[in-house]
Amino acid sequence: MKRILLIPAAGLVIFFAGCQSTAPRDSEADTVIEQLQQDALSSDLAWDILASLTSEVGPRMGGTGGDKLAVRWAVKKMRDFGFDRVWTEPVKFPRWVRTSESAEVFYSVPKEPLAADASEMEKRHYNKIGLRKPVGQPLAITALGGSPSTNGPLEAELVQFDTLAALEAASSEDVQHKIVFISTRMRTSRTGAGYRETVINRSRGPFVAASKGALALLIRSVGTDNDRLPHTGMMSGSEPGERVPAAAVSNSDADNLLIMLAGEEPVVVRMDLDVGFAVDDYVENTAEEYADDKAAQATSFNVIGEFDGSADLSEFILIGAHLDSWDLGTGAVDDGAGVALVMAAAKIVSDLPVRPKYGIRVVLYANEEQGIYGGKAYAKLHELELGSHLVGAESDMGADRIYSFRTRVSPQAEPTIDRLAHHLKKLGIERDESELAGGAADVGQMRKLGMPAIDFKQDATHYFDLHHTANDMLAKVDPDDLRQNLAAWVTLVYLTANSATPFGPVEPSDQKPHLMPSFHERGLPGRAP
Amino acid sequence: MKRILLIPAAGLVIFFAGCQSTAPRDSEADTVIEQLQQDALSSDLAWDILASLTSEVGPRMGGTGGDKLAVRWAVKKMRDFGFDRVWTEPVKFPRWVRTSESAEVFYSVPKEPLAADASEMEKRHYNKIGLRKPVGQPLAITALGGSPSTNGPLEAELVQFDTLAALEAASSEDVQHKIVFISTRMRTSRTGAGYRETVINRSRGPFVAASKGALALLIRSVGTDNDRLPHTGMMSGSEPGERVPAAAVSNSDADNLLIMLAGEEPVVVRMDLDVGFAVDDYVENTAEEYADDKAAQATSFNVIGEFDGSADLSEFILIGAHLDSWDLGTGAVDDGAGVALVMAAAKIVSDLPVRPKYGIRVVLYANEEQGIYGGKAYAKLHELELGSHLVGAESDMGADRIYSFRTRVSPQAEPTIDRLAHHLKKLGIERDESELAGGAADVGQMRKLGMPAIDFKQDATHYFDLHHTANDMLAKVDPDDLRQNLAAWVTLVYLTANSATPFGPVEPSDQKPHLMPSFHERGLPGRAP
Repeated sequence: MKRILLIPAAGLVIFFAGCQSTAPRDSEADTVIEQLQQDALSSDLAWDILASLTSEVGPRMGGTGGDKLAVRWAVKKMRDFGFDRVWTEPVKFPRWVRTSESAEVFYSVPKEPLAADASEMEKRHYNKIGLRKPVGQPLAITALGGSPSTNGPLEAELVQFDTLAALEAASSEDVQHKIVFISTRMRTSRTGAGYRETVINRSRGPFVAASKGALALLIRSVGTDNDRLPHTGMMSGSEPGERVPAAAVSNSDADNLLIMLAGEEPVVVRMDLDVGFAVDDYVENTAEEYADDKAAQATSFNVIGEFDGSADLSEFILIGAHLDSWDLGTGAVDDGAGVALVMAAAKIVSDLPVRPKYGIRVVLYANEEQGIYGGKAYAKLHELELGSHLVGAESDMGADRIYSFRTRVSPQAEPTIDRLAHHLKKLGIERDESELAGGAADVGQMRKLGMPAIDFKQDATHYFDLHHTANDMLAKVDPDDLRQNLAAWVTLVYLTANSATPFGPVEPSDQKPHLMPSFHERGLPGRAP
Repeated sequence: MKRILLIPAAGLVIFFAGCQSTAPRDSEADTVIEQLQQDALSSDLAWDILASLTSEVGPRMGGTGGDKLAVRWAVKKMRDFGFDRVWTEPVKFPRWVRTSESAEVFYSVPKEPLAADASEMEKRHYNKIGLRKPVGQPLAITALGGSPSTNGPLEAELVQFDTLAALEAASSEDVQHKIVFISTRMRTSRTGAGYRETVINRSRGPFVAASKGALALLIRSVGTDNDRLPHTGMMSGSEPGERVPAAAVSNSDADNLLIMLAGEEPVVVRMDLDVGFAVDDYVENTAEEYADDKAAQATSFNVIGEFDGSADLSEFILIGAHLDSWDLGTGAVDDGAGVALVMAAAKIVSDLPVRPKYGIRVVLYANEEQGIYGGKAYAKLHELELGSHLVGAESDMGADRIYSFRTRVSPQAEPTIDRLAHHLKKLGIERDESELAGGAADVGQMRKLGMPAIDFKQDATHYFDLHHTANDMLAKVDPDDLRQNLAAWVTLVYLTANSATPFGPVEPSDQKPHLMPSFHERGLPGRAP
C-alpha cells in the first residue's frame, strides 16, 4: 500500500514536494478541501456577488441612500443563499455629507512687456488678455471625510510642507491665513506599509493645520498611482482640537503644484467644499428607534447571516467584511470583494453534503470607513457572547492575490494551523510568523476583546492605486485573483469550522475598542445652513 | 587607415552592425548628429518646456482663457529662445463651451416581499426604504465636443448597441424616445489602429442616433484604459443632419452599464449637459479684427517662430504640433509633448556653432482638437508659399518612444532619407516603407497641397489610455521616452535642414483641405439662454 502512495499522479508530486507539514492527515477532509479548492478556482460565485452589489447598489457611503440599498441587498442575498438565519443590528453614527467640492489654482508668470517690434495684432491680443480676470486651472480634489465646509469659496496662498512633521515644526507665522499643502508621496509595497506612513497627513493634518492658524488643508492623495483621481478617506475622529476644511488632490495635480511652488510667483488656491456633518437629521432618526440617544444622527445596520454547524449549535467561526464603501467609486475592491468572498465561501462550504461541525457566522459591517462603527457596535453587543466565537477572519485589503497568512491562536490550535498552512501552500500562500494576526478593522474589535484571529495578507502593490478613489470599480478586479482568494477562504472556513482543538484563549487588548473616542462622542460643528 | 576604421570602439560595433545604409558619409555632419543625439538623450529641455506649459498654462481648449494664455506663453517662450522672428496668425472657429455635465443611472432589482419571520426592526427598515425616492448611481461622463445642450435633465431608458453599424441597422421603433448606448471597446495596439475603428461612434454616432429618433447618445469612451475617466473628443463637423446631445462614459462605467443591461429590469439614465456652441460671442469678437466674417465666434492664433538658415533665407523645413488641448487634463501628452519637442529640437539645432543651411519654421497650431482649424488656416494662408516648405513633420501622438518613420518624398531625396534611417536606427527607429507619410492632422494640411512629409510613429500602446481624459497630465510622461523623441527630432531637423537634394515634388491630394466643411461652415444651434 505504501508503495502505491509513493507513486502519485503528476499533480500530487508538486503537492507533496511543496508540503513541509507534519500534521496528521485526515484523508477524508483533505479530499474535501482539495475538491473545494478546485471548485473555487473555477467558480464565478464571488464575481457574481460582486457584480450584483456594484451594479444593483453601487456606492454605499454610510448614511446615504446607497447604504440603505446595500443593507436590503445583503439581507436578500443571504436569504436567497439559504443562510439559516439572517438579521440586522443597528449601528449609529453622525451623518457626514458631501454635496459639492471644487478647487482651482492660480499661478502665472508675470506678463512680459511686448517686444518693440510687436505687430498691431499682437498688441491688441496682448491687451485683451491683460484686461481679463486671472485664468485658473481646476484641481482634482476630494474633501476628506469629517471635513467641515468652507462655507463658500476660500482663497489663499498655498504654503507647502514635505511632511506632517515639517508642518508641526513650522512657525505659525509662516502658516496662518494660508492654505497648507502637505506633499508626502506614499511609497508602493506589497504589504501596503506606505499607507501607515502617510495616512497621518489625512488623519492628523487638519488638526495640526488648525493649530497653526491655517485656513484650510490640501494633502497629496494617500495613494500610489499617477492618476488624476483624488483619494478620499476619513480624518481622525479622536484627535483633540479644532480642524480646518481639508481635501486631497490627485497625485498628478500634486506634482503640478510642486512645479508651480518651485517658481518665484505665489501660488494661490481657491477651495469650495460644501460638505460637513448634517445637523438636520436629528429629528428624523431619533423619532424612530433611537430616541434615547441624541448623538445618533444616522442609523445603518450590520447584516449578519449564519449557517448552522452539523454538530455544535453554540459555537461558530466569524468571517467578515464591511458593507459600506466610499462614495466616489462603487467600492468593488474596498470592500465589495471582501463581502463577496466571505458570503461565497460560507455558501460553498455549507452546501457540502456534510456541513462542518461548527457554525459559520458572516458579518457584513456597517460604516467601517468613517470610524469602524459597525465593528465597534458588534463588539459592544456581542462581548458577552465572546466565548462562542471560535476564531475570526476578515477580508478588507482588496481583491488581489493572497500571499501569506498570520495567526493569533493558542498553541493547542497548531495542528489545525499546520493543516491550514499545508493546504494554502498549494495556492501560493505562506505562513508568516513574524507578527500576530490583528483581525483587520472590524473583526479586530472582537479580537481586541480576546477572540483568536487569522489574517490573510493580500498583495497590496496595486491596492493603493485605487483605494478610496472613483477608480474603485469592478473593472479593476481580476477574476482569477478573486478565485484564488475564494479558494483560500473555503480552505480556511472548512478547516477552522471543523477544528478538533480550540483556537483560544488569546490575550485581549488593554483597551476595549468600542470605548475608544470617535466623531460619535464629540461635539460636532454642523454645516452652515 | 582602413584597418583602423575596422577596429571601432565597442559602441560603434553595434553602430556599424546595425547599419544597412550605403549613403555617402559626410563625416563632419555625422559627428555633429552623434553629438546632438547624445546631448538630446541627456537633455531636460523638452521636459522643462512641457512642465512650463502644463503648470503656467494648463488646459487650453480652443476659445478659453487658457487658450489665450497659451498663445502668450508660446510667443514669450519663442522670444526667450532667440527665434529670429516670432509672429501669430489668426484662426477663427465657433466657440464650444462646457459649463457642466452629469449623469446618473437608475437600476434596481424589484423589492422582494419581506420574509414571514422578519423582525419588527426589519419591517420598519424595509418600509422606510420603500418610501424613499429611487437611488441613482452617478456615471462618470463627459460631453462630446460639438454636443448641444440637453437644456436641463433628460431622463429616458437606455438602449444598447454593440457597434455603430448595429445602431444603423436598428428600427427607429426600438430607438426613439430613448438614450442610445454604443458599447464598442477600443482595442490596444502599438499603432493605435483601434482608434480609427471606434472613433466613428463619437464622430457619427450623434447623427445616426438623431436620425433614428433617439433623445441622446452615450458612447463607451474611445480609449483603451480601465479607469473611471471619460474620454472627450469632437463629434463630426461635416456629417449631414441633426445631432443629439452626446457624451462618453468611462470604460469602467460602461462595463457596469452592460451588467445592468443584462438584467431584466429597465436601465434608466438621467443626463444633464450644459454645453454647446456659444451664441453670445458674436458681438465681442466681430467688433474687433473680423467684422467681415459673421460666422467667426472666437479667435485664437497659430504661433510661428523661425530660425534662419545659414545659407538660404527663402526655404525652410516645417515642424509643428498643436498648442491647444482638451479641457479635462493639462494636455501634457496631447499635444504638450509635441510642442515641447519641436521647440526644443529647433532650439538645440539652431544653437550649433554652424546652423543648418535652410531655415527651421516651428508652427504651434491653434484648435486642432475641434476641427484642425489651425492647420487649415495655415494651409489657406501659406498655399502660395508652398514651394518654400522643403519638408514637413509633426509630433502629435503623445510622448512615448518613436519606433519607426515614414516618408513622402521624391526619389532624389533618398540619399538624405538613407542617412536619416542610418542615424535613427541607433535610437531604435526603423524605416517603415509600407505606407507613405501623412503629415498628421495639422502639418498634413500642407502635405495635401503637395508638401513633402516625414512622419515619426510613436508607440501608441498606452497613448489611448489617457487620450482626451483628465489623466493627460505631466505625471504620465516618461522623461527618458521624451529624450528619445528629442534625439530623433534633432536628427531629423539637422539632416533635413542640411539636405543636399530637394524632397519634392510629391503629389497633392484631390481636395484642398481648408475647403473641407466643418462646424465653421454650418448653421450652429446655440445653447439655450
